Amino acid sequence: MTDGVVTDGAVVERVVADQAVVDLLGMIAYGELTAFERLATDARMAPTLTDKISLAAMAAAEFTHFEAISMALVGRGVDPEAAMAPFIGPLTAFHALTAPADWLESLVKAYVGDSIAADFYRAIAHRLDDDARALVLDVLADTGHAAFVVDRVRGAIAVNPVVAGRLALWARRLVGEALNQAQQVAVERDALTGLLVGVGDLEAVAAIFNSIMKAHTERMAALGLSS
Amino acid sequence: MTDGVVTDGAVVERVVADQAVVDLLGMIAYGELTAFERLATDARMAPTLTDKISLAAMAAAEFTHFEAISMALVGRGVDPEAAMAPFIGPLTAFHALTAPADWLESLVKAYVGDSIAADFYRAIAHRLDDDARALVLDVLADTGHAAFVVDRVRGAIAVNPVVAGRLALWARRLVGEALNQAQQVAVERDALTGLLVGVGDLEAVAAIFNSIMKAHTERMAALGLSS
Repeated sequence: MTDGVVTDGAVVERVVADQAVVDLLGMIAYGELTAFERLATDARMAPTLTDKISLAAMAAAEFTHFEAISMALVGRGVDPEAAMAPFIGPLTAFHALTAPADWLESLVKAYVGDSIAADFYRAIAHRLDDDARALVLDVLADTGHAAFVVDRVRGAIAVNPVVAGRLALWARRLVGEALNQAQQVAVERDALTGLLVGVGDLEAVAAIFNSIMKAHTERMAALGLSS
Repeated sequence: MTDGVVTDGAVVERVVADQAVVDLLGMIAYGELTAFERLATDARMAPTLTDKISLAAMAAAEFTHFEAISMALVGRGVDPEAAMAPFIGPLTAFHALTAPADWLESLVKAYVGDSIAADFYRAIAHRLDDDARALVLDVLADTGHAAFVVDRVRGAIAVNPVVAGRLALWARRLVGEALNQAQQVAVERDALTGLLVGVGDLEAVAAIFNSIMKAHTERMAALGLSS
């Protein structure tokens, strides 16, 4: 129940407070459920039947992940809805503030937004017990977003280069709103924050954020967007 | 490739035109895809997180069915999108004309509408080859709609009996629009109509419709609605 003493920057003890694990799983579970809803709804904006099917397949994969996390919570004697409850507000606010105006915005959100969240969850997951860590890494594996979105967004920019500027701004807004909501969560969920801060020292925390931002910049470049 | 002579009302030959099989599978596939979209979108109207998860689970099940039918079409050397194409118009029109105004309407539509379609597909499926028939019966198996919807609708009527009249009217409108679109499909897709008419004589066709209407009446009664 106590965080271990960090003996090395790379090797941290994996004994973490139960509440932090429940919080992390609850947050990811609700994130997957809202991702499902969002992708399934955005599928209606798809310009072709092929695109619609691709987005629907991603949505269905997110729901499978949601179910896996729910079952893991039940297996730990935790009610999944109770675990998700604290994160409904911040995630609902995030999605309300970043409703895509069209198909391309929804693609960029699905890719850029979900990838940053996944990178962040993965960074924390290293401090979970073996079972929880394996589950988190498994459900966060790419569900086909990357290749599909990169192809569609690059294709749209090739046809009309002007959209690149608009989508770059859109991605910046997504990152800004995500950080706002993350800060809100950090203030309210001490255990979860402890999981991150417990990584070691401020330098270690900074290293995590740096690596997340680096991966984000690479994804933006892959999309043909400036970050 | 020719329809067999019916020797008995219950025993019909299962040799049907390839085009009819492709049509039926294509129609069911697009039906499942739109059911997925509709349920996932309606999940946003759910009054509780439990309800939202239940509807999302049904939606994910519909997508699994869609994938099974798509794979079966590919296995027969048919492009699923081409097979679905003729049914996009009628199914889109049906859903546009029957957009639920609230959560209860969406539940009644998910249950009453999908059940009638499923009964109809099942009736035709008896004339397909073994593989196609087994697949159709499998994907049309209840995905948990029934118990969930009956529970929620009866609960809502218990709290406010007035909603029963509104929902009964709504169900009647759903059936009417479904028949309109089915007639449109029947006019345009000869092979598919042949599958139904090939059942034998008009009496046999009438018997199918009677049994579908009987099952509908029973479902309405289970919901606590007059039909």
